[in-house]
Amino acid sequence: MKYNYASRMAGLNGTATREIFKLLGDPEIISFAGGNPAIQCLPTARVKEICDEITSRPDFARVLQYGLTAGFPELRKQLCEYVKTADIYDASVENVLVISGGQQGIDLVLKTFINPGDVVLVENPTYLAVLQLISSYEGVAKGVDESGEGLDLNDLEKKIIKYKPKLLYCVPTFSNPTGRTYSAENRKKIAEITAKYGVVVIEDDPYSKLRFKGEPVPSMKSMDKAGNVIFISSFSKILSPGNRTGVAVAAPEIIRKMEICKQGTDLHTPNLSQMITYEYLKRGYLEEDLKKAVVLYGRKKKIMSDAISKYMPSEFNCTDPDGGLFIWGYFPEKIDTVNIFPEAIARKVAYINGSVFFADGSGRNYMRLNYSYASDEQIEEGIHRLGDLFKEKIAGLR
Amino acid sequence: MKYNYASRMAGLNGTATREIFKLLGDPEIISFAGGNPAIQCLPTARVKEICDEITSRPDFARVLQYGLTAGFPELRKQLCEYVKTADIYDASVENVLVISGGQQGIDLVLKTFINPGDVVLVENPTYLAVLQLISSYEGVAKGVDESGEGLDLNDLEKKIIKYKPKLLYCVPTFSNPTGRTYSAENRKKIAEITAKYGVVVIEDDPYSKLRFKGEPVPSMKSMDKAGNVIFISSFSKILSPGNRTGVAVAAPEIIRKMEICKQGTDLHTPNLSQMITYEYLKRGYLEEDLKKAVVLYGRKKKIMSDAISKYMPSEFNCTDPDGGLFIWGYFPEKIDTVNIFPEAIARKVAYINGSVFFADGSGRNYMRLNYSYASDEQIEEGIHRLGDLFKEKIAGLR
Repeated sequence: MKYNYASRMAGLNGTATREIFKLLGDPEIISFAGGNPAIQCLPTARVKEICDEITSRPDFARVLQYGLTAGFPELRKQLCEYVKTADIYDASVENVLVISGGQQGIDLVLKTFINPGDVVLVENPTYLAVLQLISSYEGVAKGVDESGEGLDLNDLEKKIIKYKPKLLYCVPTFSNPTGRTYSAENRKKIAEITAKYGVVVIEDDPYSKLRFKGEPVPSMKSMDKAGNVIFISSFSKILSPGNRTGVAVAAPEIIRKMEICKQGTDLHTPNLSQMITYEYLKRGYLEEDLKKAVVLYGRKKKIMSDAISKYMPSEFNCTDPDGGLFIWGYFPEKIDTVNIFPEAIARKVAYINGSVFFADGSGRNYMRLNYSYASDEQIEEGIHRLGDLFKEKIAGLR
Repeated sequence: MKYNYASRMAGLNGTATREIFKLLGDPEIISFAGGNPAIQCLPTARVKEICDEITSRPDFARVLQYGLTAGFPELRKQLCEYVKTADIYDASVENVLVISGGQQGIDLVLKTFINPGDVVLVENPTYLAVLQLISSYEGVAKGVDESGEGLDLNDLEKKIIKYKPKLLYCVPTFSNPTGRTYSAENRKKIAEITAKYGVVVIEDDPYSKLRFKGEPVPSMKSMDKAGNVIFISSFSKILSPGNRTGVAVAAPEIIRKMEICKQGTDLHTPNLSQMITYEYLKRGYLEEDLKKAVVLYGRKKKIMSDAISKYMPSEFNCTDPDGGLFIWGYFPEKIDTVNIFPEAIARKVAYINGSVFFADGSGRNYMRLNYSYASDEQIEEGIHRLGDLFKEKIAGLR
């Protein structure tokens, strides 16, 4: 039979990272493509301890029964405490929704706000899955330029006036893919400008805790006076991606709409996932484990930066991030990272080509490199392989 | 700030069951409203045993890391075996998608197929959450009449010709809310008629394993020659609702589209939830536990049927199901179960009014009663309370 799909399916082909994820079944491939935390940072002993206790409780059956869509009440309370670490001091339970990972939070916001044709402003470049999500609601993504401080405020206001967007999506701390962080002043201005024009902001914050250098910057949500900022955070990078938990913080009216959307999507986040996150936070394990994680990620970043200096062609320009999981760089314009990708795979090394992060599909000379997942030796070896490949390509240009 | 929501939000107010679920925080209320399995059927000891083992494995970190969107490969293989119990013998891994509960499966099918204005045929009455889901895609639900054998085939064909629907949603075994089961012949004809007109069928099957009387009927998917039937099953009623796992079986092309939609929704079902379901199936626990569950549910159904005979007014007509979780009944037309509901809550007993199950909002004299969740004593006492209330209402009609 020939199937007659919804029109939203026309633009959806699966995100590059997810598709590349499938390649990683080949253990010989060194992958800088995903955003996986280091395997040694995953707190297996702690989660075992927590599971042992939860499953031994006399009321364990409660965990197996249906739960509330918005999440376990005790977890919601705990999350109100947790978001104080992002300078959000006034959240109460009705401001907070438990989500099945940060990705679901973004999806629920888009479902709540976006009609076909509605514009969503994004950083240029931005998190590639968001471009797919916007497409899945038949919305239109428009890129906002960046300045040295964060978003280019003139370009932001100009594009708000021009496109009348419903939403702005941004990752103000250790942005994916660029790793850049907006200044406090830039965040404050973004909150003011968007409030002035009635634009709702998704402040996606999966990485801010992974800072190994420099001083933290307060969240944009903490500067939100109009109630137009939705803060989304994930425990995927600091507890477990496989556990699929996160939190959304917003005005109660928005949280209620997102909750109704979540009813349809999955009824609620699995209870055991929620309880693991609750206990992990309550016992203070997150803080303790983060201290070790940032040291590790800082070291891995340095290994990759050093390997880049050593092996990559001098024509490769890249960032030196203070946190997060990625190095972002570019080659001269004639180097096409999309076309070269199969050759990299043939040499058993994977990256993400930059063009998937640009709303307009440009940036074919860009590349994102993840340093958290591969081992120290793999980082050295993988960058060596990439360096050889791209040196050949650059030589070919002459 | 005034928020400018998507037009899909206009029709969404949260499903009646989910909202009533919140009431159940009051332990004095006897609830016949939800669809919760009996607490004593939840396999706490087995899940503890499984969790103990999974969390002790040397490769436990793999469970905490990201997984594939379609699900753990070994679970997908196990599910191919599992669906043989629904007479689906030819499923291979590419026919199978792991879902976060049956509800997510339905949502993903609608996302894959439904544009605003598209018609979805449903049984009349049907599962209330499906009506909300169709509304969330701005689709239009149209009810198909039932015959003694299942769907009224003439009405089905007439409405296919009239409305050109993309989908038919049905629960052929122990339908929610009516508890009725379509005959094998009726299923075969539905598969044929829908294939003839290119209509895709969602065969939702959360209840067929909960049969305490009569002979099983083969699934509609087992009669699907054109590849137009999508079979969705859930482990919520027979393992754990809080674990949020289920399975969709369909043509590989459809599964691939649903997988892409799931990428956006939640990336993947939590790994621990998947592993629990995998081990529970592999160890044969599901079969063993089902044997006990159906005895319990058969007994509880009888307690409720007996209490209805004893306490409810003779004007109440209701079903005597062979399985599933619900009794469905109606009063004379002037008895309005919607308006009477607050009085039932005042007397500390909850039901679901029938109108929420009808695509056209009719059926205000109907009522669905769940017998799996309340204790034996609560069933007796709750039906006694409802009997007194509705006897008063019927007396008031005279």
